[in-house]
Amino acid sequence: MISADIKVKQEKLVRAMEDAGIDACLICTPVNLYYISGCIFDGYFYLSANGDAHAFVRRGSVADGLCCHSIRKPGQIPAILKELSLAQPRTLMLEDDYLSAANYLRLKKVFEGATLARNLLRAVRSIKTDAELDMLKASAAAHGRAYACIHKLYRPGMTDIQFSIEIERLMRQNGNLGMFRMLGTNMEIFMGSVLAGDNALTVSPYDFAMGGAGMHPSLPIGANGTPLCEGNTVMVDINGNFTGYISDMTRTFCVGRLPQRAYDLHNLSIEVQQELSLSKAGDSCAELYEKAVQIIKKYGAWDEYMENIQKSRFVGHGLGLEVNEPPVLSKNSKAILKENMCLALEPKFILKGVGPLGTENTYIVRKNGLEKITHTPEEIIQLA
Amino acid sequence: MISADIKVKQEKLVRAMEDAGIDACLICTPVNLYYISGCIFDGYFYLSANGDAHAFVRRGSVADGLCCHSIRKPGQIPAILKELSLAQPRTLMLEDDYLSAANYLRLKKVFEGATLARNLLRAVRSIKTDAELDMLKASAAAHGRAYACIHKLYRPGMTDIQFSIEIERLMRQNGNLGMFRMLGTNMEIFMGSVLAGDNALTVSPYDFAMGGAGMHPSLPIGANGTPLCEGNTVMVDINGNFTGYISDMTRTFCVGRLPQRAYDLHNLSIEVQQELSLSKAGDSCAELYEKAVQIIKKYGAWDEYMENIQKSRFVGHGLGLEVNEPPVLSKNSKAILKENMCLALEPKFILKGVGPLGTENTYIVRKNGLEKITHTPEEIIQLA
Repeated sequence: MISADIKVKQEKLVRAMEDAGIDACLICTPVNLYYISGCIFDGYFYLSANGDAHAFVRRGSVADGLCCHSIRKPGQIPAILKELSLAQPRTLMLEDDYLSAANYLRLKKVFEGATLARNLLRAVRSIKTDAELDMLKASAAAHGRAYACIHKLYRPGMTDIQFSIEIERLMRQNGNLGMFRMLGTNMEIFMGSVLAGDNALTVSPYDFAMGGAGMHPSLPIGANGTPLCEGNTVMVDINGNFTGYISDMTRTFCVGRLPQRAYDLHNLSIEVQQELSLSKAGDSCAELYEKAVQIIKKYGAWDEYMENIQKSRFVGHGLGLEVNEPPVLSKNSKAILKENMCLALEPKFILKGVGPLGTENTYIVRKNGLEKITHTPEEIIQLA
Repeated sequence: MISADIKVKQEKLVRAMEDAGIDACLICTPVNLYYISGCIFDGYFYLSANGDAHAFVRRGSVADGLCCHSIRKPGQIPAILKELSLAQPRTLMLEDDYLSAANYLRLKKVFEGATLARNLLRAVRSIKTDAELDMLKASAAAHGRAYACIHKLYRPGMTDIQFSIEIERLMRQNGNLGMFRMLGTNMEIFMGSVLAGDNALTVSPYDFAMGGAGMHPSLPIGANGTPLCEGNTVMVDINGNFTGYISDMTRTFCVGRLPQRAYDLHNLSIEVQQELSLSKAGDSCAELYEKAVQIIKKYGAWDEYMENIQKSRFVGHGLGLEVNEPPVLSKNSKAILKENMCLALEPKFILKGVGPLGTENTYIVRKNGLEKITHTPEEIIQLA
């Protein structure tokens, strides 16, 4: 049966389509199919602004209770709509931000005559339903249980890659699905990042907060074989996809004692998050970023903020089914915080000769502040 | 420095552009940037049919010896071309099969007036250079070394998920990069598939040879918690990305003895591959598929071929930087085998009540036959 939550999501999308003067949408990528129909199939989900929902299926199966039509190719859809006495859409929303241009142009031909509208789903998805918030909290809880055991995996002489492999296994043993969903070509990574010492100074081409050279030039991000050395830190930022919804959490570990500046920068990351978590629905994302910058500059830590050279100029981002959802907390963001958005805050620093510092946590935007849902201790954890 | 191999690849693309009447191309997705420039950066690689190569870089770094221009947005590229006294392209090739429609339409605006040509890179990439074949062989060798240790990971009472987690770790310990690159939205998986018993009968929406229910409805593919039981098989098909280039190899394991039919189907998979590996450059991919079908039907195993219900109607596929490259060995394929293509052959079967059967191997197309590069024993390996 179609769940109450799926109905809520479809109603949200219908309202957004009405507001934008869109007659119908055709959804076919896995992440958006899962969001709007509750299941992933090879085919197309059609939803009209009147609320008519139909699945056109090439392969796989859909939830009971959803009108389902078997097709070989999308070219058959207009004729089936006609048979069903449904109007052909004059304005049709396609996933222009997900579909390849080739597939988009193919669908455009099928619906010749229709005006194509841009995908509203990323905006709709940015405000979570109650069921989605429950899934995010369940991921965050499992994420925390796994992270609490990371320190037990350390063995003297380990490299960042070896440490990463053991953490990946720990995560999977705790139910992590492995899969790290993100939109677009400017982000590619395996399960996440384990970044040690000065490898953090290597700028990556991807749009993450932190870089690292990676294991191979075909994937220049994260761990690169750096040994976990006395006086160095190692930052663990492995994806929290335990329920389809991804929680984002970073903790920092070290071997031996660090210079005082390292502890100070780490505490500054926690302080920035505490300040930002006083923000609430209605606040501007650009202002949150500006607030973080002010705190960091006042402390005299701007040079060490994010990747020191080609700085990532943001302090956090939305997340959910994907790790890079709207809004972005950056200087030029025009977004406003809305109730039930889900955010990751990650003010991070790099101290040359020591390594990366700071934490990252996942928050839900509430009326009166940000509610933190990732709960493991935040201090630097000494491995040996 | 730009390697000799990169020069070979660029010359191949230049020749393909000339043949198609294309003036220049603009490449910006990681996999194609890596192929054509040897490195991944945030930006655009421009190559004209005259052989002029320029990198327009937003973030990250490129190989020494490549003309590099710093940009903030692609709209600056035409003006820089003008400054360099390079002609504006009248016909421009974009990655229409990789770029989102939104990004493609943005680039289209930047090069207003240019005719846009379809991406030729998938076809160019399907025929490997000598250096690429070396990388594929290196991946296949590491893949084989790891697979030879899989049987040691089995513990009585394990589920498919638990077995998978240990295999993933083994692969990573042997240098696997984890990342499983594939094009398009009809394939999504973590590191690969570990499929046990009747879970193999569950049809997946994705375009893989085998299905499985998966751990969660947000990722309906592969292991689902099935215990590894007496009289059942478990098929291991984990990605062989050790060098950026992916080798593809499947081996089948079992607990206890199986009915004779299981061994027969498994041997049939090996026999089909032996017959197909007599194929050579110049043969038609559709004929290879037809040959496989004839052998399987003659043996009376068509009902058990691939996923029994919604059958995957192919017997193999090209691979390289991605696991789904041209050609596809299917009924309607129009492709012809060419020397130095790389293929995976995977005639697989499912015996109800027992599980999946068969092997998969990676081959290089040679003048006189297919050269197998994945070399571990192919018989069913009894775990206990």
